[in-house]
Amino acid sequence: MSFLSLDGRGLSLPLRKQGVRVVFGETDTSKRHSIPVDIKSYLEEKRNVVDRYLEAHLPDPQTPPAILHEAIRYSLLAGGKRIRPILTMATAEAIGPCPASLLPVACAFEFIHTYSLIHDDLPSMDNDDFRRGRPTNHKVYGDAIAILAGDGLHAMAFEWCSRADLVTDLDPQCQVQIIAELALGAGHAGMVGGQVLDIQAENRQVDLAELQQIHVHKTGKLIRAAVRVGALLAGAGMTQFEHLTGYAEDIGLAFQIADDVLNVTGTREELGKDAGTDDQRGKQTYPAIYGLEGAQRLAQDCAARAIGRLDGFDEKADPLRGIALYIVDRRN
Amino acid sequence: MSFLSLDGRGLSLPLRKQGVRVVFGETDTSKRHSIPVDIKSYLEEKRNVVDRYLEAHLPDPQTPPAILHEAIRYSLLAGGKRIRPILTMATAEAIGPCPASLLPVACAFEFIHTYSLIHDDLPSMDNDDFRRGRPTNHKVYGDAIAILAGDGLHAMAFEWCSRADLVTDLDPQCQVQIIAELALGAGHAGMVGGQVLDIQAENRQVDLAELQQIHVHKTGKLIRAAVRVGALLAGAGMTQFEHLTGYAEDIGLAFQIADDVLNVTGTREELGKDAGTDDQRGKQTYPAIYGLEGAQRLAQDCAARAIGRLDGFDEKADPLRGIALYIVDRRN
Repeated sequence: MSFLSLDGRGLSLPLRKQGVRVVFGETDTSKRHSIPVDIKSYLEEKRNVVDRYLEAHLPDPQTPPAILHEAIRYSLLAGGKRIRPILTMATAEAIGPCPASLLPVACAFEFIHTYSLIHDDLPSMDNDDFRRGRPTNHKVYGDAIAILAGDGLHAMAFEWCSRADLVTDLDPQCQVQIIAELALGAGHAGMVGGQVLDIQAENRQVDLAELQQIHVHKTGKLIRAAVRVGALLAGAGMTQFEHLTGYAEDIGLAFQIADDVLNVTGTREELGKDAGTDDQRGKQTYPAIYGLEGAQRLAQDCAARAIGRLDGFDEKADPLRGIALYIVDRRN
Repeated sequence: MSFLSLDGRGLSLPLRKQGVRVVFGETDTSKRHSIPVDIKSYLEEKRNVVDRYLEAHLPDPQTPPAILHEAIRYSLLAGGKRIRPILTMATAEAIGPCPASLLPVACAFEFIHTYSLIHDDLPSMDNDDFRRGRPTNHKVYGDAIAILAGDGLHAMAFEWCSRADLVTDLDPQCQVQIIAELALGAGHAGMVGGQVLDIQAENRQVDLAELQQIHVHKTGKLIRAAVRVGALLAGAGMTQFEHLTGYAEDIGLAFQIADDVLNVTGTREELGKDAGTDDQRGKQTYPAIYGLEGAQRLAQDCAARAIGRLDGFDEKADPLRGIALYIVDRRN
C-alpha cells in the first residue's frame, strides 16, 4: 500500500470545504484526507473481478443466435474500465459487509453503459468507427445487429438485477428500489434524456447552464445510480445515502469535464478512438468555455468537493476517495 | 352481452383436444366452450383503460427534452391494439381480484412492444416508412431520436414496474419475479433474440422448425411473459400458471401465423402499413410453406388448443378465450 500517487507525480487539490489546502501524495496536511490506497491496483483488482464474473455468467457465445451473443461480448469484453460497477462495489464496501449479489447488480451498470456506447457510435448518431482501439460494433456486425446487441444488453441489465439464480441474498424490497434507480438513471430522465439534449446542442452556441444539464443527464445520472445502488446494497442509512449521492454528483461532473479535456489532450492511442472529435463536430465543451487549464482546475475542484462529502466515512471509503482523484487524472 | 361473433359470421374451430367439433357463435355443442362475451367491446373497453392510464402517467410532452417525450408519445399513442397489456389484465382477471398496480405493469409490455417497432422500422432494419397509418418514428423525428425514443421506452418499461409511486400494492418478491419475466421475454433469450434470428433468415430457404424458432422468440416470448405476469399479479397457483403458460404459447404462435396471413390478404388501409412486404423481402412465412388456407387453418388450430388449456378455468377466463379467437380473425 502506498499513499495515493496516480502516476508518479503528486496531485494538488484545493479542498474548499474547510478552507484547507491539502496536497495528496506529497505532504499530507490533513488527518482525514490521506488516502492509503493504491488506487491503480485497486481498480485493476476490481476490474478483474468484474471481468471474471462477466466471463462466467454471460450467455455462451455459441448460444443461438450466436451472432447476437458474439456482438454483445465483442463490445462488453473490449477492455472497458468498469468504472460504474466498481463505483457500486466501492460504495457498498464503504458502508459495510457486501451481499453476495453485489456483482450481478454492479454488472448491470456496465451493460447499460456498453449498450449506450454501441447505439451512440451508430452512423445515425455519432458515426464513430473506433472505440477502445477496435472497430465499433456496427463496423464489425452491421447496423442492425449493433442496434439489437444494444437492445439485448439493455434488457440484460434488468435481467441480472432480477434473476433469482443470480440475486440470491437481497431483500426483495431493496431489490425493487435498485431496479428503479437503474431504470431512472438509464432512461428518459437520465442517460437517454442526456443523449437527446446532447444531439440538440450540436452545432450551436450552448451556455454553461445548458452544458451542465447535458452532462448531469448523459453521464451523471447513471454514475449517480451506480453509487446509490451500492449504498442500497449495503443498507446505507439516510444520511449516508445523501452524502454518497452528493459524492456521485460531484464525480459525475468531474468525469465529464475530464472527458472533454481528454478529447483535446489525449492521443488516439490513449483514447482508443479518434481525438479532437468534439471540436470537429461543433460540440460545446468545458475546455471551449473555460480554456484547457480552467477546465482541468474545475474538474479538480469537483473531485475535491466529492472527497469532502465523505468526511463522515472511515477508511473503508478510501477507494471512493481514490476514484474521485483517478477520474480527473486518467489518460483514457 | 352476445355470444362470441367476431364480425357477424360464425367462427368454426376444430377443438382437437377432446375430439369434439365446436362451432362458436352458431350452434354450440359444448357446455364449456360457449363464450358469453362480446370480445370486441371487451377489447375496446380495456384499450380505453390502457390509453387513459398512459395519458395520465406518461411524462408531459413539455418535459425536457421535449422532442424525446413527443417522439415517445407519437409512437405509443398511435392507436395500437394494446393486445399485450390487455392479455396481462385479462389473465389476472381470469384468476381473481386484481391489484391496483395491474396497470403500470401491463403498460410495460406496451412500452417494450412499441420500442421494438420503432427500432424495427429503422432504415438499417426493416426500413419501413409507415406504421399504423402514419409515417414511422424515424421519418418524423430522424433516426437518432427514433433510436433514443426506443431506448427511452425500453427503460420506461422497467421504471413503471419498479417505481414506488406507481406500484403500490404488490408483494416485492412477486414484483421482482414480474421484472425478471419482462426482461427475459424482451431480451436476448426472447424478443431481441427472435429479431436477430429473423434478420438472419432473410433471403434464404428456412424450414418449418426454424420458422417456428423465429416466431417463438420474436413474438411468442413477450406475449408469454405478458400472460405469465398477469398470472403472477393475481397470485396464480402452480397448475394455473402452467396452463396459462401453455395458453400463451399457443396464442403467440396463432398471432404470428395470423400476422403472416394478414401480410398477404390485408390491404394497406387495414394494416396501416404496406401489405405484401414479407414476399418482397424474401421472408419465409407460414402462407409460403402451407399455402394461404393451410396457414389459416393452422392459426385456428392454435387458437383452439389455447382455449383447451383453459378447461380448468371458470367464466372469468372468457375474455382470454375470446382473445384467442380474435387473434386469428382480426383484420389488422
